[in-house]
Amino acid sequence: MPQLRLALAQVDPVVGDIATNADMVVTWSRYAAQQGAHVVAFPEMMLTGYPIEDLALRPSFVDASADAMADLAARLNDEGLGELAVIVGFVDRAPTGRPSPEGRHLPHDAAAFCFRGTIVARYAKHHLPNYGVFDEHRYFSAGARLPVVRHLGVDIAMTVCEDLWQDGGPITAARMATSGLVVNINGSPYEQAKADKRLALAQRRAAEAGATLAYVNMVGGQDELVFDGDSFVVNAHGQPLVRAPQFEQGLVLVDVALPAASDDRVGSVDVGDGTLMTIERIDLQTPPVPAYDAAPAGVAPRLSAEAEVYAALVTATRDYVAKNKFRSVVLGLSGGIDSALVATVAVDALGAGAVNTVALPSRWSGDHSLADAAELAHRQGIAHTVVPIADIVDAFEKQLDLHGLAAENLQARVRGTILMALSNEYGHLVLTTGNKSELATGYSTLYGDSAGGFAPIKDVPKSLVWRLATWRNAQAAARGQTPPIPQNSIDKPPSAELRPGQLDSDSLPEYEVLDAILDGYVEDDLSLDALVRAGYDRDTVERVIRLVDGAEYKRRQYPPGPKISSRNFGRDRRLPITNRWRAAGSAAAAPAGPPSGEYARS
Amino acid sequence: MPQLRLALAQVDPVVGDIATNADMVVTWSRYAAQQGAHVVAFPEMMLTGYPIEDLALRPSFVDASADAMADLAARLNDEGLGELAVIVGFVDRAPTGRPSPEGRHLPHDAAAFCFRGTIVARYAKHHLPNYGVFDEHRYFSAGARLPVVRHLGVDIAMTVCEDLWQDGGPITAARMATSGLVVNINGSPYEQAKADKRLALAQRRAAEAGATLAYVNMVGGQDELVFDGDSFVVNAHGQPLVRAPQFEQGLVLVDVALPAASDDRVGSVDVGDGTLMTIERIDLQTPPVPAYDAAPAGVAPRLSAEAEVYAALVTATRDYVAKNKFRSVVLGLSGGIDSALVATVAVDALGAGAVNTVALPSRWSGDHSLADAAELAHRQGIAHTVVPIADIVDAFEKQLDLHGLAAENLQARVRGTILMALSNEYGHLVLTTGNKSELATGYSTLYGDSAGGFAPIKDVPKSLVWRLATWRNAQAAARGQTPPIPQNSIDKPPSAELRPGQLDSDSLPEYEVLDAILDGYVEDDLSLDALVRAGYDRDTVERVIRLVDGAEYKRRQYPPGPKISSRNFGRDRRLPITNRWRAAGSAAAAPAGPPSGEYARS
Repeated sequence: MPQLRLALAQVDPVVGDIATNADMVVTWSRYAAQQGAHVVAFPEMMLTGYPIEDLALRPSFVDASADAMADLAARLNDEGLGELAVIVGFVDRAPTGRPSPEGRHLPHDAAAFCFRGTIVARYAKHHLPNYGVFDEHRYFSAGARLPVVRHLGVDIAMTVCEDLWQDGGPITAARMATSGLVVNINGSPYEQAKADKRLALAQRRAAEAGATLAYVNMVGGQDELVFDGDSFVVNAHGQPLVRAPQFEQGLVLVDVALPAASDDRVGSVDVGDGTLMTIERIDLQTPPVPAYDAAPAGVAPRLSAEAEVYAALVTATRDYVAKNKFRSVVLGLSGGIDSALVATVAVDALGAGAVNTVALPSRWSGDHSLADAAELAHRQGIAHTVVPIADIVDAFEKQLDLHGLAAENLQARVRGTILMALSNEYGHLVLTTGNKSELATGYSTLYGDSAGGFAPIKDVPKSLVWRLATWRNAQAAARGQTPPIPQNSIDKPPSAELRPGQLDSDSLPEYEVLDAILDGYVEDDLSLDALVRAGYDRDTVERVIRLVDGAEYKRRQYPPGPKISSRNFGRDRRLPITNRWRAAGSAAAAPAGPPSGEYARS
Repeated sequence: MPQLRLALAQVDPVVGDIATNADMVVTWSRYAAQQGAHVVAFPEMMLTGYPIEDLALRPSFVDASADAMADLAARLNDEGLGELAVIVGFVDRAPTGRPSPEGRHLPHDAAAFCFRGTIVARYAKHHLPNYGVFDEHRYFSAGARLPVVRHLGVDIAMTVCEDLWQDGGPITAARMATSGLVVNINGSPYEQAKADKRLALAQRRAAEAGATLAYVNMVGGQDELVFDGDSFVVNAHGQPLVRAPQFEQGLVLVDVALPAASDDRVGSVDVGDGTLMTIERIDLQTPPVPAYDAAPAGVAPRLSAEAEVYAALVTATRDYVAKNKFRSVVLGLSGGIDSALVATVAVDALGAGAVNTVALPSRWSGDHSLADAAELAHRQGIAHTVVPIADIVDAFEKQLDLHGLAAENLQARVRGTILMALSNEYGHLVLTTGNKSELATGYSTLYGDSAGGFAPIKDVPKSLVWRLATWRNAQAAARGQTPPIPQNSIDKPPSAELRPGQLDSDSLPEYEVLDAILDGYVEDDLSLDALVRAGYDRDTVERVIRLVDGAEYKRRQYPPGPKISSRNFGRDRRLPITNRWRAAGSAAAAPAGPPSGEYARS
């Protein structure tokens, strides 16, 4: 059987920066060639970054991508890389594609096969996802052609991301074309435990295609999405041949032995999803590589449940800061667990020198709050200042007669204003420290603790916040380092400290219960009755559902933060603000009250 | 030719409030029957409100809608309305529809034909829009059946909204089935001058269908969308028979003479859009109505360009406040034109008694600012208070050493915090007063002047703000009333008044130029070169494009407000925050600097 050395470039492109991304392709291709690779594959939309959202609708952007792709193919040859086959994701013109409402043809989410200075084959993604965080029917025309490239004695087919996740289509076409190798390029966002699903899926598809399947995914953060890499190759029997570490940029190399190309079937085939695809053949007239001894390849171990989430938060935070050209961040330290975890993530992402923390004590802050905040900053060696807010709050209260929630929220907004002033004065990005349980229930103050540019733990439920903090401390201890988070911040009962003796548990169920109900209601769309059947107290479930339903307006103005769950508050879950549907009971049966009324901790 | 009296119910359903919406159908059906109507049609998604967004993915919601529709058909009969044919939009189960990623079948955006207590026919929308503000491929399974109901001697077909906007499909099927009447039910959002496009389109489709076409649309506001009604009937020659006033709830009545039903074609037909549809027949066995004298019907005049935008703002503001169960609003009055217009819209929407205004003078506010604000409040009879901010700003500055933009933004955030405190204390909704030109260029302070729950003029460019204010004053003068807006607020040069002598023109091009460039770049996706070719100064265009590209992070946290343009900042335009694409020049050529860096008036 012919052999070849395959490289998968698990790299981190930047949305919109086509020139830098093209440079990245050249750099990593050179490295792949130095390692003796015959074929190197880059992720989906490598040249443009992913997802590009409405940039896909801008004709000048599509032209820039398509033109840059042709230039890149020529440049690879000019730089002595013409004999390396380079597969690159990009946005391609689709002159006969589906017209947009303005009458333009929507482009293709495409893969280019570059060899000896030209694009010898172009594949356009067939299955366009339009669910969850994906809106690809808005942006792209679907492809219906499968070019099969004969190279080094092997027939190679290209597919893009979702082509793997749906039945029929190009995988079926690849089997009909008797491809030896299917390269699947991806921009597949991280979710908890997704790596297991991916591998199992790829194993199934490799068997369906009757081919070795190479899966390459990007790493890095892009607004609310974070990509975990997890690139791998499985053979036609589903056996993993190589697998990359998660969240790390790098080149995966593997020697594969593949069936010799022998089939010449072309033309239209029924691919089992209600459509026809056309098989095309491109023969590069390259002889098989003489037999050689395969180098050993390894399967990197998977991260633990906590480690992979933590890595996602660090990666997302690092990339949001760097790609938006900030050099430093600032956040408020309350002494509590949420801000402690965010500070630790920031230090792991950016280094201690780039992280600034501020304690903002009010008249209701406990002594332990200031002490725990200072202790955290001390342990991590980060800048820490104290700005008391009592005099400022007094100045407001001289002008306004405020009570109850209005007075509580005022304190949170004074803190938000101070952090934003420090951002404006010093150029720091403000990190928001709210967690998913707060965001779900609206237990936060708009423009107060919700102010900021990036919210690293907005998709992390409170119970997972504790687990991550405990895990991170244990990691440090295992390495003989001081645990970064003071144990007192982990152990003490959570409080917003906006009135004397306040505890979260005054307003919310215990977090373990709350998070379980939220998981059922938000992520699994369970009804009230289903949650009660699952064993939760009916009154508690009703209360939680009402809080979630009533807090949509707050979530809409929240900063972005990394998705780690199967349904984040963002593109994954899109609900009207004006919405009288109450899953906790009919609108008539529910108590009167604004569905999006108060700007208040509720 | 058989005659019948057709009623179109141009009404305002509430998203998620199925019980109230069902009551509304009964009430308006009774009124239609009293007026002698034989058929009454309600808008798309009448029973659920529109758009319902991810509620469509919640099985309990789809079940509630489908069950309520069956109940409603029975109830109409119980209430003595069984002989009236009632066409109602709702969300229907689609047991064989396209599966969602979770394996559920996506529902139908459907129309029910109710008669004598049952749903005698169900039609499912065939063309699902997935562009602009629409994401219907995310939510619905497309229909492929056209039931034709024979009633009173006439063959009646139903279609839904987008079915009219795309070629082929059910309009073609309706012609093949020789329908006499096509009822098209709509949730079609307002855009400037859209009414003209709609009528021309309907005239073309009526000719294609060879049928009289009845178009019924909802009125009212739903988050960022506002529906203008504009219901009408055109005959097969394209002649308008009746047309409703824009933005007004009401029943449109018209007597139509239609070709006698004679065709019996059923089965699968090629409808010219690459799909097959199935024509089905339902014969209600009702004899034609004996000939009668048709009542006269009128075509309401269209509103002027300014009047229709103004009506959209008033309608959207009224519905957002009412549907979210607020009873009052509060806004800051600067003495400038933006807040003056928003206050006037609020008074026209809610009445003077529900509107509260606050002047928030700083050390840099001119005397005219306080005087103009007070004068506006006086003219409109609205509550007005003055809360000076200088002492509060001083309290912050005692703790923080702020300069330049940081000090300017602080003042705006103190104002935002005061308005939010008043909201919390008194339950007012905060209205945000920013216009589209500011939002486009990022000329606003996050959590400062951008704070609030609803932003009535966020899609109104500054030059249109002036036109609307002038128009509204002229309207008042023409009626012998005091113009609501002080002329000085219209005439004076715009200023943020955050430093001595500051003018908007220090930072931005003149608004007439700015708005023209924004229109080309934002709404028409024109490139830098295209704008220069259109006659604008290259440096100015580059500057404007950079401001727009760099302000995405601010727009993402802005409150909702009504869409009046063909592309609003919201669902219509979705760009990454992290985005190095610069339409004003390549990333390499553009000056270094954060694409989303400062939280500052830039």
